[in-house]
Amino acid sequence: MNGQLGRRFVTLAHGAGGKETQELLDRMLFQKLEKKLKSVEGGVGLDSPDDAAALPIGDQFLVATVDSYTVSPLIFPGGDIGSLAASGSINDVLMMGGKPLALLDATVVEEGFDLDLLSQLMDSLMATLRRESIPLIGGDFKTMPKGQLDKIIITTVGLGLTRRPIVDAELKPGDKIVVTGSMGDHGATILALQQGVDVLKSGLESDAKPLTSFMLPVIDRFGKGLHAARDPTRGGLAMTLNDWAKGSGTVVAVDEAAIPVKESVRLYLGMLGIDPLYLANEGAAVLGVEPGIADAVLRTLKEAGAKDAAIIGEARKPKEHRGIVLLKSGIGGFRILEAPAGNLVPRIC
Amino acid sequence: MNGQLGRRFVTLAHGAGGKETQELLDRMLFQKLEKKLKSVEGGVGLDSPDDAAALPIGDQFLVATVDSYTVSPLIFPGGDIGSLAASGSINDVLMMGGKPLALLDATVVEEGFDLDLLSQLMDSLMATLRRESIPLIGGDFKTMPKGQLDKIIITTVGLGLTRRPIVDAELKPGDKIVVTGSMGDHGATILALQQGVDVLKSGLESDAKPLTSFMLPVIDRFGKGLHAARDPTRGGLAMTLNDWAKGSGTVVAVDEAAIPVKESVRLYLGMLGIDPLYLANEGAAVLGVEPGIADAVLRTLKEAGAKDAAIIGEARKPKEHRGIVLLKSGIGGFRILEAPAGNLVPRIC
Repeated sequence: MNGQLGRRFVTLAHGAGGKETQELLDRMLFQKLEKKLKSVEGGVGLDSPDDAAALPIGDQFLVATVDSYTVSPLIFPGGDIGSLAASGSINDVLMMGGKPLALLDATVVEEGFDLDLLSQLMDSLMATLRRESIPLIGGDFKTMPKGQLDKIIITTVGLGLTRRPIVDAELKPGDKIVVTGSMGDHGATILALQQGVDVLKSGLESDAKPLTSFMLPVIDRFGKGLHAARDPTRGGLAMTLNDWAKGSGTVVAVDEAAIPVKESVRLYLGMLGIDPLYLANEGAAVLGVEPGIADAVLRTLKEAGAKDAAIIGEARKPKEHRGIVLLKSGIGGFRILEAPAGNLVPRIC
Repeated sequence: MNGQLGRRFVTLAHGAGGKETQELLDRMLFQKLEKKLKSVEGGVGLDSPDDAAALPIGDQFLVATVDSYTVSPLIFPGGDIGSLAASGSINDVLMMGGKPLALLDATVVEEGFDLDLLSQLMDSLMATLRRESIPLIGGDFKTMPKGQLDKIIITTVGLGLTRRPIVDAELKPGDKIVVTGSMGDHGATILALQQGVDVLKSGLESDAKPLTSFMLPVIDRFGKGLHAARDPTRGGLAMTLNDWAKGSGTVVAVDEAAIPVKESVRLYLGMLGIDPLYLANEGAAVLGVEPGIADAVLRTLKEAGAKDAAIIGEARKPKEHRGIVLLKSGIGGFRILEAPAGNLVPRIC
């Protein structure tokens, strides 16, 4: 952390979604809020870090989530900030076991922003909702004077309903870890664009998309057998698995060779020495499922079109150290897959 | 609207919450979305412009609202962006007849922002929630590189429950118009600060606060007799009354002499030739109530501490022109109170 005459300032790492973000929010919010101001009785609040909150209403749970999206460039192979913002909030609802019900959005735009481009991005957001038959039921629109905002921030709110929220801390020893698709596609694509790489020629493409068609069949068929679900966005698979290991007190062991990574992503990131397991995904989920149903979950995902879905490892009872992630490398032997920290590349949301 | 070689750009007026905002959103969103993608069956969606959306869940309605807050300066007499963001979303829930249940927040901060100041603003947000016993159940935190954002944007999501949403279009001829407090306090205070006026000496203070203690007793006691409720933020009382007149097809007639305006606000705005009815409030509500209960509503508000509450006018059956607002001026005679347009002063959210 930086310092100057005792004053301290926000760094990019504070907002990167890794260790520094966790520490800042712990100190600034979580530790200050008394239990009843951060928890939901019989539901999921801020005290249970997860993809979304869950509030009991009648015999169901309302799932609610909010995220602010900024990305540069605004348009990329596979999507744009509009489809990204819609998909992201839909996915957070799904990851809590919720059926998406409605979206709200709050858009803040810089004065001088091209109106046609704004319209294009909003069309993209609406097209994503249209494909999913999810209504946009409310929102906000504001402008900031030129120079006070770099282009646009879209904040989306996802609302859904579930009979049973999926709380990731319920991951149990023996559970299998399943991914619905290849890792690192979105992060690698944005990074390449920021570095001026010809992404189309490189075959890079963001995976940004709603996970509804993969997740709803799995939620419907396997209900209680699903112990954890998350879409590994900022901080990638490494962040999700570390969160899970820590939250559930297990050790998560995954096999590097079993983790799907596209050849184009592997090639590009290999040149830079960046591990795809730390890069964001915007259209893939990680699931922790009872061992007895793992094969059936995989089959259900493949039938739903998730052709790269794979079982990549399992949660284990800790021997010495709980809360860590072990990665079995291609040449054998395990190493610890650390939680991401510092200024994650690329800065994406 | 500006133009250059056929290209058009976002102006500050587009985001000011007045006529241009309405036109832009109409063209860009509302007209493009088919009915089922903007409406809520049996509830309130984007097709019914109001303070919040209302979704039927079981035998109740979930009330949901989102707003992005930017304000300069960040701290002002009467509050700061933290208390403002919390109060604003609480009030939007109340204005739909909802009992606030929980808040979520998404904060985006500029790299280099003072950490102590950030902590102070978050403390203020939490203190507002603490006083209201409303939990913060989820959120997002991101940073943008230095120069890409002016300070901070806080987006808050308000969730609540109601047995009956207050839909403003249900204002009826004969209904009395009641305000819970003086008009223009927040807008006048922010404007004065931006102009370098010594606001403390001028006696100016923002009214930013949750309206819970005023609104819950009124909602509880008068239920169906409440036909419309809104907190007149951007665009002030003029915006709210014009929206209501248009939405309900009535004529709204108010008496300028009956509208409470603080002496400090009147004096300061008088010097600038600005009408307080166009300035934002962040802790006052306008209600449209059945004529038979107007006095009782006023009494209930005063008992709850709303000492400046007043009956200021009524909705009438239109003769020639429907959807207009008439203002009876001090010297007698009516003039049309136009809806705000252009670049509203001051730019506040």
